Amino acid sequence: MKLLIIGSGAAGSTAAQFARKANMKAEITILGDEHYSEYSKCGLPYVFGGIIPDFKELIEFSPAWFQRFKIDLQLERDVYAIDTEKKIVKSRSLQGGDEQAHDYDALIIATGARSWVPEIKGAYGSEGKLKEGVFTLRDMDDAKWIMAWAKKSKRGMIAGSGLVGMEMAEALARMGIDTYVRLRTHMLTGMIDEDMAGIVQKNAELEGIKFLPRVTVSEIKGNNKMECVVLKNLDTGEETDYPMDLLIISAGSTARTEVAEKAGCKIGVTGGIVIDERGQTSINDIYAAGDCTEYPDLVTGKPCLIGLGSIGVKQGRVASVNAVGGDEEMPRGILNNRTTELFNMQVAAVGPTIKELKKAGITPVLGKAKGSTVPPYYPGGKELNVKVMVNPEDGKIMAAQIVGEQEAHQRVNVFAVAILRGMTVKDFLQLETCYAPPAAPTFDCMTLAVDAAAMRLKRIKA
Amino acid sequence: MKLLIIGSGAAGSTAAQFARKANMKAEITILGDEHYSEYSKCGLPYVFGGIIPDFKELIEFSPAWFQRFKIDLQLERDVYAIDTEKKIVKSRSLQGGDEQAHDYDALIIATGARSWVPEIKGAYGSEGKLKEGVFTLRDMDDAKWIMAWAKKSKRGMIAGSGLVGMEMAEALARMGIDTYVRLRTHMLTGMIDEDMAGIVQKNAELEGIKFLPRVTVSEIKGNNKMECVVLKNLDTGEETDYPMDLLIISAGSTARTEVAEKAGCKIGVTGGIVIDERGQTSINDIYAAGDCTEYPDLVTGKPCLIGLGSIGVKQGRVASVNAVGGDEEMPRGILNNRTTELFNMQVAAVGPTIKELKKAGITPVLGKAKGSTVPPYYPGGKELNVKVMVNPEDGKIMAAQIVGEQEAHQRVNVFAVAILRGMTVKDFLQLETCYAPPAAPTFDCMTLAVDAAAMRLKRIKA
Repeated sequence: MKLLIIGSGAAGSTAAQFARKANMKAEITILGDEHYSEYSKCGLPYVFGGIIPDFKELIEFSPAWFQRFKIDLQLERDVYAIDTEKKIVKSRSLQGGDEQAHDYDALIIATGARSWVPEIKGAYGSEGKLKEGVFTLRDMDDAKWIMAWAKKSKRGMIAGSGLVGMEMAEALARMGIDTYVRLRTHMLTGMIDEDMAGIVQKNAELEGIKFLPRVTVSEIKGNNKMECVVLKNLDTGEETDYPMDLLIISAGSTARTEVAEKAGCKIGVTGGIVIDERGQTSINDIYAAGDCTEYPDLVTGKPCLIGLGSIGVKQGRVASVNAVGGDEEMPRGILNNRTTELFNMQVAAVGPTIKELKKAGITPVLGKAKGSTVPPYYPGGKELNVKVMVNPEDGKIMAAQIVGEQEAHQRVNVFAVAILRGMTVKDFLQLETCYAPPAAPTFDCMTLAVDAAAMRLKRIKA
Repeated sequence: MKLLIIGSGAAGSTAAQFARKANMKAEITILGDEHYSEYSKCGLPYVFGGIIPDFKELIEFSPAWFQRFKIDLQLERDVYAIDTEKKIVKSRSLQGGDEQAHDYDALIIATGARSWVPEIKGAYGSEGKLKEGVFTLRDMDDAKWIMAWAKKSKRGMIAGSGLVGMEMAEALARMGIDTYVRLRTHMLTGMIDEDMAGIVQKNAELEGIKFLPRVTVSEIKGNNKMECVVLKNLDTGEETDYPMDLLIISAGSTARTEVAEKAGCKIGVTGGIVIDERGQTSINDIYAAGDCTEYPDLVTGKPCLIGLGSIGVKQGRVASVNAVGGDEEMPRGILNNRTTELFNMQVAAVGPTIKELKKAGITPVLGKAKGSTVPPYYPGGKELNVKVMVNPEDGKIMAAQIVGEQEAHQRVNVFAVAILRGMTVKDFLQLETCYAPPAAPTFDCMTLAVDAAAMRLKRIKA
């Protein structure tokens, strides 16, 4: 049994790990086009602020680990073709020259994603590369380049206020850089709604981040080196020059699917490879996992691009176990359970945002509560803001968002189980939550938020 | 509509609160035999160590609160009879003399529990009271007496290593008292199993607590004032004198059901009042809630005495809403979702202990994992020990225990939902848990523990 994996990132390497667990005899090979064995891409922003001392700390699976488990890891190789008839993959060395053919019984495509750069006048210099001082952040090389440049920068801007953008804004501020973030509507639009984002934004401003609302980057001025960023007001059309040393374009990513597409794997509406509950693509014995795939949202049923490491590794696990003859299944959709810490706030969410729900034709019933991590008489309590979104048709919980200094992460996991199991607000109110003075109040803020939604729902039905 | 509530503790006062929410016109009266309006009994240990500055901070519902919501709170009254035919309750003032009759349409009994004192030779002095220096802890008066005595004590012992006993051990140690705890088997027997308790015990020992294993208190020496505690070794029978200034007997509690029993309410095998899913006793229009009741365990179906504030307030809510004409239901059993913090460790559990499961004829499949709160490359991670217990028949998760310095509380809530919704290990492995470098690893230690159980289960079935 020969298992071939294209991509040495989190999904690909985790696939190899679980394939080995499930099948001690399989020949497992990974072809990756990176210079390093598997490392945490999500950890990159934390090296800038000095929380993680060095990029090399981010390596999770060392070459020695792969050797120990008899997994043939081949790095710096570009896979350019798959012959699905003969079951052969063709690769060449990134250093040039060396071409190879690799036969397989089962193949896992885990090619990940790349940064997306919107059309901006003057973004590129004479060699067709982004101008000096303009960056995107996807991999360790990007991060190292940004780091070298950031060390000599005084003013930096983030174009894009998503998860990575905001993590980088905080990181630059920690480095002592005067940091600007351009906003179209609110920060973290893919993650949380405007009301919850407002709470985080206040904290970010307290830490010195300067938000530039309702603007877009219309031009990058300067020859091969950026001199200033031109921002255009979305309402008035007015343009303003912002001299900057550093600009990080953090506008999301697109799935890397060229080799899969050429091989005939079905590509979905989001641009990701379509996979089924066993992780298989439209072609037999070809599986895919991670950021190169799309998968339905559990609540709306609409396909989403995978953009979370936690989902990628889960898909990698399922795909690899099935690829080597085992039997594992994914649920029929993803929860998009996501979290981060920004400016001393934990920001956690699961399920679609209100915008995504409305796009899917659902206007949710909302339940909001402001609670504390501990009962009022116990010192040191931190405010927790909880919001749940409920389907007006059947009372099922569809999404939750939590923002607070502490104890938000695992509370969102509680809602994740509730959504996965199709719990209604009535079901949720039967839940006993844990209580102790130093731990949580008798009525948890999760319960209070669901309670608020249940009351609204009752009023609507009446 | 006249609602009468006997008991002004958490269950009774919460019942009044939700009755008022559900029915703005009801006449609501509480007859309580305490000197203070509702306060947190669970908070009492935290006043000793100085975390909470004063006992009065523990008051959650002030007399002014009851006035504002037009709830007639009558304290220091002893209810001695219920005439269920005429629907009249009889009470007298604790100060003596004043007798009153109160008519009701619906009645809620929330009389709580009292400390249980096992038979110990020499426990009582000449007046039939516990000797000076010997205490139990149930209410604020007890706590104040202990506090006054503890301030002049140098050596203290806790007879009983349950939740309250261990919280008091930590509190005494914080006061600078040389603190001993007698153990029969392991600490927190009602809460966690021996393996998990061992982790907490190590930390307690580091903080200076002295455990005396495999002993029981056989005698308390001294005239009206305790001079020394005699401990008897459970294996050898050998007796040893321990001179002590302070002894807290923390051997659990019994339901206070005299008035309910006299009225004809059915009392269960545990000694608690039997209630149904609507909170009603065996007598129409008489409800009960909190520590005076018993209710089935959701997993084993066996009746348990309620001993958690979080369950008490939930029962109070359900009983009162139904009592004033609303419609709320409890689940068919309790999860006993419980948590505390002891010696810088969070200790959390849900579902029966292994001992309770075996007593119910179930030998669970175990899954254990040692994980971290964050990925290995992120600094500051704290160890988390997770244990799950799974039904070998159907693969359903029945119980979980978590011990760690941080992030244990809400993880146990995740398992609580899983148990409430009857999730199998296979179902649980479909769960996406939240991930971010500062928040949690991609594969959470909850997942790892369930994974371990799933593998064991597979081996058993094979």
